[in-house]
Formats: sequence, structure tokens, C-alpha cells
Amino acid sequence: MRSVAVVGAGQSKFGRRNDARLDELAWESVKQAMDDAGIVQNDIDSFVVSTVGGWSAELLPAVFVGEYCGLEPKPTMRVEAACASGSAAIYQAYSSIASGLADVVAVVGVEKMTESPTSVAVELIGRAGNYFWEFENFGMTFPGYYALYATAYLSKYGATEKDLAEIAIKNHYYGSMNPKAQFQKKVNLDEVMSSKYVAWPLKLLDCSPITDGSAAVILASEKMARKLTKDPIWIRGIGAASGTANMSLREDFVGLKAARLAAKSAYQRAGFDGDPKKLDLAEVHDCFTIAELLAYEDLGFSRKGGGFKMAREGQTYKGGVLPVNLSGGLKAKGHPIGATGVSMVGEVTRQLKSQIKGDRQADIRNGWGLVHNIGGTGHYAYVTLLSQDKGGQ
Amino acid sequence: MRSVAVVGAGQSKFGRRNDARLDELAWESVKQAMDDAGIVQNDIDSFVVSTVGGWSAELLPAVFVGEYCGLEPKPTMRVEAACASGSAAIYQAYSSIASGLADVVAVVGVEKMTESPTSVAVELIGRAGNYFWEFENFGMTFPGYYALYATAYLSKYGATEKDLAEIAIKNHYYGSMNPKAQFQKKVNLDEVMSSKYVAWPLKLLDCSPITDGSAAVILASEKMARKLTKDPIWIRGIGAASGTANMSLREDFVGLKAARLAAKSAYQRAGFDGDPKKLDLAEVHDCFTIAELLAYEDLGFSRKGGGFKMAREGQTYKGGVLPVNLSGGLKAKGHPIGATGVSMVGEVTRQLKSQIKGDRQADIRNGWGLVHNIGGTGHYAYVTLLSQDKGGQ
Repeated sequence: MRSVAVVGAGQSKFGRRNDARLDELAWESVKQAMDDAGIVQNDIDSFVVSTVGGWSAELLPAVFVGEYCGLEPKPTMRVEAACASGSAAIYQAYSSIASGLADVVAVVGVEKMTESPTSVAVELIGRAGNYFWEFENFGMTFPGYYALYATAYLSKYGATEKDLAEIAIKNHYYGSMNPKAQFQKKVNLDEVMSSKYVAWPLKLLDCSPITDGSAAVILASEKMARKLTKDPIWIRGIGAASGTANMSLREDFVGLKAARLAAKSAYQRAGFDGDPKKLDLAEVHDCFTIAELLAYEDLGFSRKGGGFKMAREGQTYKGGVLPVNLSGGLKAKGHPIGATGVSMVGEVTRQLKSQIKGDRQADIRNGWGLVHNIGGTGHYAYVTLLSQDKGGQ
Repeated sequence: MRSVAVVGAGQSKFGRRNDARLDELAWESVKQAMDDAGIVQNDIDSFVVSTVGGWSAELLPAVFVGEYCGLEPKPTMRVEAACASGSAAIYQAYSSIASGLADVVAVVGVEKMTESPTSVAVELIGRAGNYFWEFENFGMTFPGYYALYATAYLSKYGATEKDLAEIAIKNHYYGSMNPKAQFQKKVNLDEVMSSKYVAWPLKLLDCSPITDGSAAVILASEKMARKLTKDPIWIRGIGAASGTANMSLREDFVGLKAARLAAKSAYQRAGFDGDPKKLDLAEVHDCFTIAELLAYEDLGFSRKGGGFKMAREGQTYKGGVLPVNLSGGLKAKGHPIGATGVSMVGEVTRQLKSQIKGDRQADIRNGWGLVHNIGGTGHYAYVTLLSQDKGGQ
């Protein structure tokens, strides 16, 4: 299998982007990623578009984006795995290059969620489970799904709403330093704890927002990566797994089995022993604060039931065991669902290259980083390990 | 790059399938494909789901299908490339195996179009171009797009509506022998010519129908294929390309550039010289009769402007230069859009193994077959070459 590197990354400003159409929004990232890689459209063999859609009237987002970005007539497809679509698209690009079918592939994640009225967006996201049994018959909403996990977790392990709040506070703290984040402001414990309940015990400030945005990365074969850059960031392994559509079929509500399986597979493929101290940073899927907490345990950063203590002790700030979501996470950076996974890989790439301005740049010691990207409530899980050049491929 | 074979194929009855939900419909094909390959779910490493969706309320079709088919917790994603989604999903599975990331991958194409009222389905399909400029501002419909091509072609080359009708007659003739086809009845010239105009010069019997259905194939690495079957059908090459979203940017309306590029790439990858006489059969994308005619030329079966003579002379019946759409094609077999490409590859596989009952079985001489699958009006194009074992890999 051929080695694959990230050789370029770009991201648009996240937030309410009434100033740009879907294709224009995509171009902001594609242009940055091509410039970062030092390439033009002609150097790209194919492109993969990650978008969940449903908010927009465009039925064929991949070709719509491709035409505007000057990528037509290159081969393309759209990939969807709910909020993990970005990672799934990267998996598709990665396997194309690893197989030898392509040398340079662009991955473009883009979502314009505010094209729908908020009530429609909330309904669409609410369908991210088993529509008939859960949404239609029992009125489940997306925050409601994660609230099930939060109540089970808090009850079983004695964690508190304040522990969840600590995750929001941390992610807003780092988001305040990220000029591309949707929310560039800190929040304090009082603000989180007094924000209104969305689905008990999750409050407004436990939830990631509805976001417009795009992200792009350029992946390349080893030969092309060596030509293009002195500091390729290698994809050392991608693991994936799926969960049941029906929540009623889940084994428990204190962790996501799909995430554990995806991590196991990624660690195996990357030859990574799972020791969080060997990672310099992780971007994890904090669509809700509880989701980040579950991630600590599903990824093996802490023992089962111990994740909330990491949050309580501030162990996922810089200087702790492992800095998590130095981008601000989905919580503060924003969550344009098809773009999220691509943005996470772009962030870890730039972090490993020490390209981040200001205090949210991680200390790079071992040169390894991790991306954890979940679709639905553990319906899809993708875990990706990236590393610097050292130690070779 | 590792060799990849089709080791199992299945297809549901196509038509109006009010008797089955989306997941149940998918299972009909998955079960057949697994039985055909002699495997069970545990033997499958990952699965890819091809569905365009929009008709159904289910937001996460891949996990919904995966749970019902017993494929959870295996890695999955949904792939979409409009009506070429099935081929794009096969491309994704193919690259996973070719790279060494997986050994056995299931590809499931499924679509339940009749869940929407026909008027909604027609609107959704009508958006398969550039929504704002073409659908919203100029009222283009999907038959309208292909009618542009038909008028340009008939006008430039002197072909007639009767030549288009010959394609419908042929495909209904073969569809009449396919127990899984939506329309199992022959049509004659009078019936086609007197059917009502949908978008001049295309009449009702020039158009493929709205269809529910599923298809599945199991792909395997060479090592696994050798274990599982004595007659693997090898994927010798897949080529793909995209077209402009805006029709106004097309170079001409007498062929699909994306199809020509996809064919060129597939032929190159497969080491195929393009001589149609070396193929035993082809399944081509006849969403409208004009589309099959353009395919003859885009694939090099005839010279530019000569395709209609192949139809007029019956050269794409068995016994002619190259039998095309012995399944009945999209026209008679039906066109459940996400399932179509998967069904085409399954059909060519079964044909190359001489497993078809009755007179629609091709004469297998060279052991090669071709699949041509188009998304939108040449917005996406995928061409796949398959062959028997002989000549080796």
C-alpha cells in the first residue's frame, strides 16, 4: 500500500455566511489548500466532495462545486456519512492514492446549513437516527439523542453538569484565539450553567451551533508529496466503524462502540500503541460537550468512567495530558457538518507543522496528532492518525 | 495495485415496490449477492451504500440499511454521483480493495423513488443540473436537458425520431425476457411513435421510468476471490470524469465529453484498445433513448454521427456488432437511480458467467463486458471494464 500525505489545507471563515453561495464557499478553502500545496487545478487527478445537503436546492453539489473551482472535468463523487462525511471523503481520497489510482486528490467539505430556516435544519438533523421509530414516533431530536448518553453517563459515574461545562469553557477559550471560528469569545462557568436547557442535562452552551463553512485538504502520494513539500504530514491510519440506526439496539449509553472500534482499527493500521502522551494534540467530535467526554474514553485517553476527571482537572488544555480541540472544536469553531472532518484534518496538519499563530499552537514533541469524527450519535465513526515525517513511512 | 473481482451479485425486482421499506429492499439484493459469493456478513470488511435519496425521510440511509442487513458495525459511507452513484460506490469499494485496506467489500445500491409523489420526484430530478440558472430561472426539466441533446443530434446528423424509437423497441424486447425488469413487455414502432411528447422530440416511450429497486455486488481481492469462486469476474479498469453543472458551458450537444474522458481512462487502465468487437456485451446508460445513442459514439462503438445507423441497422441486438442492454436497460428494466450502476455491473458479471436464463444471454466469446453509467446529463460519467479470468490478471 502506498503512503499518503496531506500536502495542503484550507478553511473558510465558519459562521453565518450569507455572503457566499455553496460553490463560492467551497472555493475559499480549495484556493487556500492549492496555494498551501503549491499546485493548481491541473495538478489534481480527482476530487471528492463531502456535504450532507438537504438545506440547499442544488441536487448535484459535487459538480456544482467542481465547476466553480475549475476542477471539471476531473472525476468526482459526493460522500456522506452524516457529521463524519469529511472523514469518509478523506478515506475515499486516501484509498484512491494508496491503491495507485491517483496521485493528487482534493477533498472539499462544504455545508451551507443556514440556507434552511433554523426549524427545518433542526428537523433535518433530528432525522439523524432511525426516522420512523425515533423521530416520527417518539419525537427524538438530535440533542435528545446525546442527552440520553449524558444522563446515563452522569448517573453511572457521578459526573456533573459542571464537568460538561468545563469542556465548553475550554473549547471557547481556544476558539477565542481562532480567527476562523464561529464564536471567538470565552465563556465562563456561570454563563454555561445558566444557559437554557435544550435537552436536559444539555444546555445551549453544551451544544455546537448551526454553521456555514468549508474546508479542503490536498492529499498526495509519497512521490508527489516529496516533490511538493519539505514537511508532508502523513496519514498513518484511518479506522472506521458504524453503529445501529436504532438507539434502542445500543449496548449501553456511556460510550460509542463505533468510536472504540474505529480507534482500534486506526491504531492497528498506524502501529500506534494508544498512549495519549505520544500524541501532541487531538481534534475530537464535540457536537455536544458529552460527546467530547465520551471521546476521551472511547479513544483510550482515560479509563472508562474517568473522562470527566480529565475535564475537571483541565488535563485536555495545553500542558495537560493531551490538548484537545485547540481549534475551538465543533463547539466554538462551528460545525458545518460536511466540512467538519476535513477541517479537523486540516487543523491537525497545520498544528503538526507549527503553523498556528498565537497561544493555541500545540507544543510539537512526538509529531503525532489524532482526528476523531462522529456521524449521528455514533452511527458513523472515523478515527485518523497523522504524523510528521520523522520515523519515516 | 491489487486485482479486484466481482464474486457475487444480486438484484431485487424493479418497479413500484410499496411492499418493502428501503432497508428491506436493500436486503433482497444483499442476501442474493452474499449467497452468490458463498459468504455471510462476517466475511465482509466494509460496505458502501449508493443512494441519491431525497424521496425518503431517512437522513442516514447507509446505517439504516446496514443495521437491517446485519452489516453493523462494519465501516460504511454513502456515495452519490446522481444516476452514476452505483458506479461511484463500486469505484470506492474497488479502491479500498486495490489499496489493501479491505479484502471483501459489499456495494449496495438502493432507491425508493415512489416514496415521493411523482410531481416531487420529477421536481427533484429536474434539479439535476444547475438549480438556480436552469431549473429555477429557465424551468428546465430532466427530460428537457436530454431533449436539448436530441434536437442537436437529430438536426446535425439527420437522424430521426424513428431511430430513437428503435432503441426503445430493442430494450423493451430484451426487458420482456428479464423477470426482474419493471416493464416486461415488448413495444412496437407505432406504440413508441404515438406515445405522448414529454419534451420534444422525446416521447414517453423514449424515457426511463421512476423506479424502486436495489442491487448489490460483492467485490474481493484476488486472494479472496480465488478462495470463493472458480469464475471471478475481474474489474479491469474504471474510468471517471465530470461535466459542467451549467449546460450553457458545454462545448456541444451531440455527445457527452465526460463519457468520452471516462471511457478513455477506463480503456487505458484496462489495456483495452476500444474495439467493440472484442466486447461480448455492454450495459449503457439509456435514461432516454438519445442517451444510448450518444453512448455508442462516446464509447467508440461507432464513429461520431454514426450511432443512429447502428440503431437503424439493429447492430446492438445479439448477433450485431455489439449487443447493448440485454437487461432491458434503464428504459425497460427500470432506473432506481442509486441502484442502477450496481445493477449494471451485476448484469455484466452474470452475463460473462453465462448465468442468464433464456435468449437474452449474450454469446460469450472474448469474455469482456462494459458498463457505462452517467449521472445527470453527463455531469458524472463512470465507465467500467470487466472480464473473465482468461488472459489472467
